[in-house]
Amino acid sequence: MTKTLRHGDAASRQAKPMNFADELERIAKLTERKLDALIPVASTRLGEAMRYALLGPGKRLRPFLVVSSARVFGVPEAQGLETAAALECIHCYSLVHDDLPCMDDDDLRRGRPTTHIAFDEATAVLVGDGLLTLAFEIMSRPEVDPDPAIRVELVSLLAQAAGWHGMVLGQALDLEAEGRSLNMDETLRMQALKTGALFKFACEAGAVLGRAKPDARRALLDYATALGQAFQLADDLLDAQSTTAKLGKTAAKDAARGKATFIALLGIDGAKAKLAGLIRDAESALAPLGAEAEPLAEAARFVATRES
Amino acid sequence: MTKTLRHGDAASRQAKPMNFADELERIAKLTERKLDALIPVASTRLGEAMRYALLGPGKRLRPFLVVSSARVFGVPEAQGLETAAALECIHCYSLVHDDLPCMDDDDLRRGRPTTHIAFDEATAVLVGDGLLTLAFEIMSRPEVDPDPAIRVELVSLLAQAAGWHGMVLGQALDLEAEGRSLNMDETLRMQALKTGALFKFACEAGAVLGRAKPDARRALLDYATALGQAFQLADDLLDAQSTTAKLGKTAAKDAARGKATFIALLGIDGAKAKLAGLIRDAESALAPLGAEAEPLAEAARFVATRES
Repeated sequence: MTKTLRHGDAASRQAKPMNFADELERIAKLTERKLDALIPVASTRLGEAMRYALLGPGKRLRPFLVVSSARVFGVPEAQGLETAAALECIHCYSLVHDDLPCMDDDDLRRGRPTTHIAFDEATAVLVGDGLLTLAFEIMSRPEVDPDPAIRVELVSLLAQAAGWHGMVLGQALDLEAEGRSLNMDETLRMQALKTGALFKFACEAGAVLGRAKPDARRALLDYATALGQAFQLADDLLDAQSTTAKLGKTAAKDAARGKATFIALLGIDGAKAKLAGLIRDAESALAPLGAEAEPLAEAARFVATRES
Repeated sequence: MTKTLRHGDAASRQAKPMNFADELERIAKLTERKLDALIPVASTRLGEAMRYALLGPGKRLRPFLVVSSARVFGVPEAQGLETAAALECIHCYSLVHDDLPCMDDDDLRRGRPTTHIAFDEATAVLVGDGLLTLAFEIMSRPEVDPDPAIRVELVSLLAQAAGWHGMVLGQALDLEAEGRSLNMDETLRMQALKTGALFKFACEAGAVLGRAKPDARRALLDYATALGQAFQLADDLLDAQSTTAKLGKTAAKDAARGKATFIALLGIDGAKAKLAGLIRDAESALAPLGAEAEPLAEAARFVATRES
């Protein structure tokens, strides 16, 4: 592929064959090193609880998406990791608040007690508030990008993706939907907000950091839309088929609560076929970006086949 | 006073005799008009709950401080109101989360049912998350300041003031302190974080918007520090002396819970004397800023004498 939408050729030197799982883990480790440095050990009890919520086991898929999207346009990995860390703060805060007794009431997350179980409920509320605010503190730092106009654009995009017309609305719609069934359009909208918005931010942030042209930015957003849907569908399939031990969180919970999922609408086989179609959509969206986008295509295939 | 630290003389045309209560109410109304426009009526149930939390009765003291501090340096009122609205979102989110059953467990706020009573607990958590995020969305907009470097500086200051080493830490320390007594230094630190940090942001934001020189910025920070302490002390005195009906929230709650306050440490008369000293400190800090800072001095006197 000789004609691509990305800028420059610096990135092409970084493109090399790799094992996807190793690459995901490598970026996860780099992200965790950055998260670890955000809050000193033994600072305050609140700080300890924030570290607990941030540094538990996790795939760090959103940081991978930021770093890999940015790398398509030649953005140095170390720079992409700053925005990646901020986004992971947002993701982790949302898990802490979603797990609260008044929300999804989950005691277990990634095989560990949830934050309100390990600490207490008030601390868990404050941990979420602290992580959410920390994300914007990180985004304001020059390390994210030397140009303040780029940083402020990322602040705007992150706030929109995470806020009351993005992820927070998705969670509100999810809660409202319990005990009644949503149709496919309603389910798609809820999931696009709850899960999709941060995936889209991750990829769009890479484009913004890389000064991508509008077509390339659009391609990444299309990819992220399909990926977000695939991720949610794979999650629903895991929830329906897995055991609690394997999943590291309470399994088959959605069905037990009558939560709207594609499984309920399409059945297991229908959902698997839809998942395969979404992965193809994600791969097609990346085609104009060339070989440097291959890690993103691998991420889509990984999302469809992961077991936890 | 002919020699002042402020820039230019545009502001001096705005300085005119006024009744402080009228001026506070005028800026409150302007702030509320802006808050009202942030979230459309009947958007979503979450949006309605956010409007409930934002648009209840309130003095809007922090917006007054932003607008009045900015005006010292000739910043147009309409511009200061943007940052003021963002800060009020932060303040209102903190009230919603502080009132939650797992936190201060308050059913009444400003004479109305708290958000988790008027809606439900899960919605109240999400309202807080939504308002917190909205504050940063507002701060990213060009209306705050045309220079993105200024906006990103304000994002940084706001995140630090509101976050895990600012207001959120203050609330965590306040919760930890229940049932044991803090000494004066510990109480001061907790209150400086929980209440003082946003007052300081309000005044510093005015200086940043106004491109104030370091001395003027320092003067406003000193003023805000004294004002924040005075505000908290006046609040404690009100709590100790008022009735629930007059206060619009549950009265004498601090004493009932053994919460650390200056009243417990100094007694009512000692606390009143300390309050008078803090108001003098606030006034002295403003002296180098000249006549344009008079509304801020009036705010300090108002804080000491308010009845709710």
